[in-house]
Order: sequence, then C-alpha cells, then structure tokens
Amino acid sequence: MAAEIVNPRSDSNADQDGGVDPDSFDPAFALHRGGKMAVQATVPVRNKDDLSLAYTPGVARVCTAIAEQPELVHDYTWKSSVVAVVTDGTAVLGLGDIGPEASLPVMEGKAILFKQFGGVDAVPIALACTDVDEIIETVVRMAPSFGGVNLEDISAPRCFEIERRLQERLDIPVFHDDQHGTAVVTLAALRNAAKLTGRTLGELRAVISGAGAAGVAIAKMLVEAGIGDVAVADRKGVVSSDRADLTPVKRDLAGFTNKAGISGSLEQALAGADVFIGVSGGTVPEAAVASMAKGAFVFAMANPNPEVHPDVAGKYASVVATGRSDFPNQINNVLAFPGIFAGALQVRASRITEGMKIAAAEALAAVVGDDLAPDYVIPSPFDERVAPAVTAAVAAAARAEGVARR
Amino acid sequence: MAAEIVNPRSDSNADQDGGVDPDSFDPAFALHRGGKMAVQATVPVRNKDDLSLAYTPGVARVCTAIAEQPELVHDYTWKSSVVAVVTDGTAVLGLGDIGPEASLPVMEGKAILFKQFGGVDAVPIALACTDVDEIIETVVRMAPSFGGVNLEDISAPRCFEIERRLQERLDIPVFHDDQHGTAVVTLAALRNAAKLTGRTLGELRAVISGAGAAGVAIAKMLVEAGIGDVAVADRKGVVSSDRADLTPVKRDLAGFTNKAGISGSLEQALAGADVFIGVSGGTVPEAAVASMAKGAFVFAMANPNPEVHPDVAGKYASVVATGRSDFPNQINNVLAFPGIFAGALQVRASRITEGMKIAAAEALAAVVGDDLAPDYVIPSPFDERVAPAVTAAVAAAARAEGVARR
Repeated sequence: MAAEIVNPRSDSNADQDGGVDPDSFDPAFALHRGGKMAVQATVPVRNKDDLSLAYTPGVARVCTAIAEQPELVHDYTWKSSVVAVVTDGTAVLGLGDIGPEASLPVMEGKAILFKQFGGVDAVPIALACTDVDEIIETVVRMAPSFGGVNLEDISAPRCFEIERRLQERLDIPVFHDDQHGTAVVTLAALRNAAKLTGRTLGELRAVISGAGAAGVAIAKMLVEAGIGDVAVADRKGVVSSDRADLTPVKRDLAGFTNKAGISGSLEQALAGADVFIGVSGGTVPEAAVASMAKGAFVFAMANPNPEVHPDVAGKYASVVATGRSDFPNQINNVLAFPGIFAGALQVRASRITEGMKIAAAEALAAVVGDDLAPDYVIPSPFDERVAPAVTAAVAAAARAEGVARR
Repeated sequence: MAAEIVNPRSDSNADQDGGVDPDSFDPAFALHRGGKMAVQATVPVRNKDDLSLAYTPGVARVCTAIAEQPELVHDYTWKSSVVAVVTDGTAVLGLGDIGPEASLPVMEGKAILFKQFGGVDAVPIALACTDVDEIIETVVRMAPSFGGVNLEDISAPRCFEIERRLQERLDIPVFHDDQHGTAVVTLAALRNAAKLTGRTLGELRAVISGAGAAGVAIAKMLVEAGIGDVAVADRKGVVSSDRADLTPVKRDLAGFTNKAGISGSLEQALAGADVFIGVSGGTVPEAAVASMAKGAFVFAMANPNPEVHPDVAGKYASVVATGRSDFPNQINNVLAFPGIFAGALQVRASRITEGMKIAAAEALAAVVGDDLAPDYVIPSPFDERVAPAVTAAVAAAARAEGVARR
C-alpha cells in the first residue's frame, strides 16, 4: 500500500500554525518530530485470504472462542503483551503539573523503553482528569485491553491511593514506576554497595531526602529488605510521629521508619548516617556529607542536578551514585520496569508483589557479579544481561508467591 | 537487546491452562496466537546519547515547549498519527454482545487495517462499561493521547448518542465506522451503478432493510446525496411516521425518509423500487426481488449470508453487490475508513463532516473510472489507488469546509 503517501506524518507543513521552529536549534525536537513510536501488524494483510483470517469471517471464530473461554484472550490477542502507560500529567519529570498533552513525549519515551529493553508493547494514555476517582474509573474501564498498567508521573499523595485502589479492582499488574522502579534499582545498588564494603543491610542507617512517590517507596522497600534503620526527610525535616503536620501517607511512614526517633533537619539526620538517598531535587551542603559515618554511601539521584555533586560526595563517601548517565553508577528506572513487566506478563501475574520487586532488585544486583567496584555497583542500562535476568527472576518470584496464572 | 528472550509472547506454554487447542484445527487461531499487532520505536535507543534525546533530559525540553504552545503536541508526539478504536463489545460483527475481551480480535484487526491501508496507527480500546455516560466520559478523558476516535461495534441506538455527544465534546474526529464507513462505500457503489445505467440518484427510489447503525447512516447519506426517495424497514416493516412503536432515532428517520409514504412490509416496499440495500441479516424472498423495477440494483450486504443470494439477485438486477469477498462488488468498509482518517489527520481536522464523507464516496467511485461494469462498480480493497485517493479528497474537503487546522 502507498503508506508513505497517506501517512499523516509525511506532510511537511508542520510549522505553519506556530511561531518557533525548535528543530533549528535543538536535536531533541528534530528527533521528536512526528512522535517516537508506531503500531505495526505482526500478521500479513496482503490479499483477501489474509483478510479472511485476520478479519472477517475468520476473526469471528476467535471472538466466539474467547467469549466462551475468557482466558483465551491472553493467547489470541496482544492483551498479555501490552501495557498502558497511564498519566494525568501532574508530576512530569521535574517539570511538575504540565497537563496530559505536554506529558506525552515522556509517555512515548517510556513506551519505547518498554519495547526496546523488555520486548513489552506499551501505549501512552494521558488522561484529561486529575480527580482520583475519575482516574481509577477510567483505568478500570479500559483495562480489558491491557495486560498491565504502568502509572507514571502522577503527583503524590494521589499516586498512592490511585495505585492501591486500582490494585484492588484489577486482576492485572498495576505498578507506579516512579515509586517502585526507583526503589528496586536503589535497593540493587545498595545491596551491592554493602557487599563491596563487607556490610549487611541490617548494619546500615539510611536517610532519604524526599517524601514523595520515590522516597516513600524506597523507604518501604528498604524496611522490607531488612535495613537497620531509615529516616525520611521532607521539606520540613525528618518525618517523625511527633510532627503534627503529616499527611496520612507520611503518618504511616513515620510508623515504620525512623526507629532511632530522630527529629529535626535533614542535615541533623545525616550526622553519622551510613547512607544518603536523595530523591528530592534539593541540595545537601558539603558539611552534612562530611558528617556522615566513615565509608558512607551517597546516592544523589536528583536530575539534572544531584543533591550533592558526585565529585564532592566522592571526597567522603565510599560509593557514589546519581541519576545521571555521565557519572558512574546511574540509578535508572529503565534497569527495572521493562523486565518487571516482561516477567509479570510472561506468567500472567495478577499483581506485582513485594517479593517480585525484591527478586528484581536481587537479579539486577547479581548482574554486576564479581566486577563489583566503587564505580560499578549497578549495571549500565545498555547491559544486555539486565532485562532477561530481571524478567526471569520476576517470573519465578510470581510463581513462588502464587500470583502467576501460568 | 534480547527482546526475543523476554518477549512474553515467546513462551510456548500458552495452552497449559485451557482445554482445547484450537490451533490444531483452524488456521485463524494459529494466525491469532499472540495477537496481530505490536508497538515499535521509530527513533533509535541504542546508547546513552539516544536516550538523552528521546528520554531525559532532552524530552523535558519538548514537554516544556508543548506546555507553552499546546498545538505543538501534533508536531512532536504521535498524537496526530494515532486513532483509538473504541468498543464496548455490544454489537461485534454478527455475534452481538460478546463483551470487551472477546471483541479484541476484531479491534486488533481493525487497527492493523488502519495501518496497512491508511498508514494510520491505531490502538484497540475495549471498554468494560456499556453505560452511555460512562463510555462518553471515558473517551473524553483519554482523548488527549489520540488524534481521532473510531467507534466500533457499539449497539444501536446507544451508538448514535455516544457519537453525537463525543463529537460535541471533543475537537478531534469521532467516527462510528459501522455507520459512516458502510454508508460511504454504499454511496460510492450506488453512484457508479447509477452512472453505469445512465441514471441519476434523484431518479432512484431505494429501500433499506435494517434500521440499525448502518441502515440509519446509509439513509441519511443517500438523502444528503440527493436520492429520489429512500424507505427504511426494520423487523416490523417500513419505518413511517404513522407507526407508534418508533424509538427517537427511528422517529427522526421517518421524518426525512419515505417521501412516498409507504407503510407495510419490506416486501411491499420493494415492489417497483430501484434499489435494495440489505444491512439487516434477514432474508428477502426471490419474488420480492422480482417485483422491483426493471434494471434494479441489489446490494445484499449481510455477512456471511447475503439477504438474497447474488445468483438469485442477478436474475433480475442490473447490478448486484454483497459484503463478501468471493463475489464481485464487495461493499467493504476498509475501502473508506483508513483514507477518511488519514485525510482528517493529515490536515488535523476537528471533525469529519458530511461533506468529507461524500468526498470520500466520490473519490472511491472515481477510482473505478472507465472500467465501470456491472461486476465492477466498486474497487477492490487491495487496489492501491484507493487510500491515497480517499485521503486526498477528504483532506481537501476538510479544508473546503473549514474544519482543517493546517
């Protein structure tokens, strides 16, 4: 077919309606022109015989079979291969609430990373609503078409309730990557940093800067994994049960973190701490880093500006990680989410459990193996061993935890 | 990346959970295994330089530009290339209300036809709700992600209200293909049949069997195109204003059809009629066909069993068409919807007007050109001239009607 002639992307008048032509000064715009993804047929539609199998009348027999035996939808459609990447555009990267349309380039980026790294098809769904109930109802209604739901860039604390209630309503995995993807990769890096320096997680006291989606999820996961202690600081200081200004989520957080009962500022909490985990976008003064325990780990993950510059952190810490690709030890979610969903979809898991996430972190840490070094506690996103290792570990954990359906 | 290893489709245990293995006796099932479509990246993600443009940090600049200048979403995302194929699974093919999951093979089929014939990306969205308000709200909320909405296999009369209200709410094309796709192709065939026999539409009296989505839309379009008269029959006979049992849609229909004031059965209406258009799935006795005017046209489009067998119709009619690929003159929606959406998306039309649909029908009829013959009043779905011709005509009509945005 003459797809090139009729493809709406091929029209070159794209800027008639606008003023600026950002292509002329930024390669990111040139790359984004027309979007970053497409749909393709995986079966031939060349002639009427093809059409009579892929469409009417042949397709009717497949529909009838699914109507009679609903689980066949996983075998005879792309449902079990495709994930909805759902956002409301309220917390996009560091840009904040930019709305659904402006979030689409990120959602498309996420979708192509799912495909590239996990072999998972993904479709951006940016919603024109921000009400918690409306988002939940909308996702529940579209769920028959998808094998999983990746929630993305939805602001805290709404993201917690949306995820929890969707998990209750749906029998497919619902996973807020800003929470759990980040937590899985952080835990993997932390395990390897501990191994490198001959310590166990139980010996470590960690301080997290940031009590949003990532901070809360990392704290939960570290506790789950057996961290010695972890305190979380928001803009007003350490989240502790003596504070009167806590949201329900932070009250909950205060209940299972901060065994040491620290109160006060982030800087005060860092004195003597073994681990700093920054997911706040704020800054940490050099003196606070210097006050940490000997051989501390500094994971300054804010993008594009780490809470502490890695060169400064390196003067005091034994292991330094960031969110940036131009420094060693990049804590990048793409190490986790493609394999986590691929593994969950492979066994048709009904949900993604804590055990599956911990298995993902362990598999990710194990890829580093004997090459472990201060500047190599976490693999590169382009290490081809990562996704298969995470996929296999997650699938096995799903079976072990009884949430696999095959 | 090791996509083959982690692709959830590659697992061969698909039938562990089920009884039957339909693959063993039906090639349609073999073809459908794993679904019929996939997502692909259209930009490279091979290394960290690629990632820094397609994802963070480069993507943030594109998001910011769209937030500041919203129309840029059409230039820098796939929005203007992608259509949601939305169903609630209530009127799937001839199978009826089989639910959203069982409808997915049809929606995937539709999606790959969009791509193959129109170069349009399409995503199946099968909804787990049938309430009119809920469907409308759901589609409105997901609309930021899409350049158009193709409604599919939603039962009448709900389909009329859903389409109308969505058109009012959204600034992207909303098109119920079961209505308008069928009507466009029927009008094209009818124009060519009239041309072949030296008549104008104004001289013809048509009778439509079926007052569902297709029947109502065909009646509207024939009136719009200047048919002499058209009567529509449902199971109870001709829709006429003297009937007390009419739904609002049929009351409306009675108002602009049946100028001759016929009442009674379909068979009675056919006596002396010039055109029969069957979209009912019922049957028409040979005697009724014999009672039509000399040189009549019989379009018996029910699938898989035409209302009149084409061999029988051929004894009386000058032109016979069906919905089947194994007889001449197949009235197939795939002749229309890919080009209609491709044309609408190309000029970023805010809606698909009557004028655009009539332009599509005329372009489709014109493809036949001088090869017009009784067994060739409509092109083959595999005629490569069709989609470009329809696309160009629809884009031009959108500009002429003032609904194009570029």
